[in-house]
Amino acid sequence: MTPEDLVELEEIKRLKYRYARFLDQKDWDGVAGCFAEDATAAYGGKTGKLEGRDAIMAFLRGALEPTTRITTHAMGHPEIELTGPQSATGTWSLHDEVIDTKLGFVVRGASVYADEYVKTDGGWRLKHTGYKRIYEELSKRPDNTRLTASWWETGGKSQLVP
Amino acid sequence: MTPEDLVELEEIKRLKYRYARFLDQKDWDGVAGCFAEDATAAYGGKTGKLEGRDAIMAFLRGALEPTTRITTHAMGHPEIELTGPQSATGTWSLHDEVIDTKLGFVVRGASVYADEYVKTDGGWRLKHTGYKRIYEELSKRPDNTRLTASWWETGGKSQLVP
Amino acid sequence: MTPEDLVELEEIKRLKYRYARFLDQKDWDGVAGCFAEDATAAYGGKTGKLEGRDAIMAFLRGALEPTTRITTHAMGHPEIELTGPQSATGTWSLHDEVIDTKLGFVVRGASVYADEYVKTDGGWRLKHTGYKRIYEELSKRPDNTRLTASWWETGGKSQLVP
Repeated sequence: MTPEDLVELEEIKRLKYRYARFLDQKDWDGVAGCFAEDATAAYGGKTGKLEGRDAIMAFLRGALEPTTRITTHAMGHPEIELTGPQSATGTWSLHDEVIDTKLGFVVRGASVYADEYVKTDGGWRLKHTGYKRIYEELSKRPDNTRLTASWWETGGKSQLVP
Repeated sequence: MTPEDLVELEEIKRLKYRYARFLDQKDWDGVAGCFAEDATAAYGGKTGKLEGRDAIMAFLRGALEPTTRITTHAMGHPEIELTGPQSATGTWSLHDEVIDTKLGFVVRGASVYADEYVKTDGGWRLKHTGYKRIYEELSKRPDNTRLTASWWETGGKSQLVP
Repeated sequence: MTPEDLVELEEIKRLKYRYARFLDQKDWDGVAGCFAEDATAAYGGKTGKLEGRDAIMAFLRGALEPTTRITTHAMGHPEIELTGPQSATGTWSLHDEVIDTKLGFVVRGASVYADEYVKTDGGWRLKHTGYKRIYEELSKRPDNTRLTASWWETGGKSQLVP
């Protein structure tokens, strides 16, 4: 590994961070821009793959579009290998939560990603993303819990800060 | 981006990590040392700004000083841009929790930071920090939950480890 | 700090990430490979130390081996100092959870690590690891919570994804 390699690694990490930020802000054009056009994805430890950016985006929007379904995706533990001048693989940890304030459920879990990246004229893109879960659990949202801020309902402002 | 730029990025990341560490350890002098004297802050998605290090510290100590009000601030997803030899901007994710063991409440949330940094003779400092929330929720602390370690009450020692 | 130093820092970070990955996958040979043979450890803010890789592994396997005791360890906020050509120290944040699905309890906490690293012929290894807790709490696992994926029981596959 050379200092020049670290520049590529930093760019790949930022791609992953941008992907998470756009996903949790429900900025779907932003999310789409993180994928190569022929990207594949295997969420939730599935053996089958979503084929192509359009199929991936249809899946993500179908699962996560309502603003009453809040998500956070915390990406950590990057272990990235450059496998060629325009290709790389990456292992990451994921801690995620889906809080559905309308249906009253919460899903929490932790996973291990196995990604592939491709360097295009526009920079690094996701060529493949997928993860297997360490665990995932589904809970009823506790009764005595109150939403005090939301990117959409309060414009990101906390009702607890005067 | 050059390898030399990465050295600056690493220093800025460490500033942010040190800030979080001092904040959660309630080391107020340490926190103060992370800010430029004329720093500004906008916590909780507020449109108004705290002006100057002294105003920021008064706010933080007023909100977080009791050791029965435990906080954690997990900083992730750094996307940092050098905008000049002595200036930079940064986007980060935040996952934070406030556990008040005396009043019996918990606040949890996730946010997106938009920071500005300045390089001083003493190194990089926070010039501006602020975030908007993806979500925040306030809960009653569950009855069947017991504190088994605290930085202050047990000197950081777990009562669960023999 | 030089760009060449950053290569060493990246290798040390990856050691820590690999350690967390192996630990949460219960890959005990993988975990053992992260430690120097004469490594020491002080988990849970203990003042006494575990002496040697074998003692550390016996402790970890004794505490965490059952696959009904799911753990996640999220390492963040690396502040690493190279102290010589083959030695380094590191401060990290830890957010961890232990979910025992059989005994019905959950432990959650946050900590600050103080590590030491040594560079061997096979790369960087943990020379000492230890942490003090910001907080730790023990809860009954909520009744209306259902495990929908596990690395061991479902092969990492979510039962929520069709």
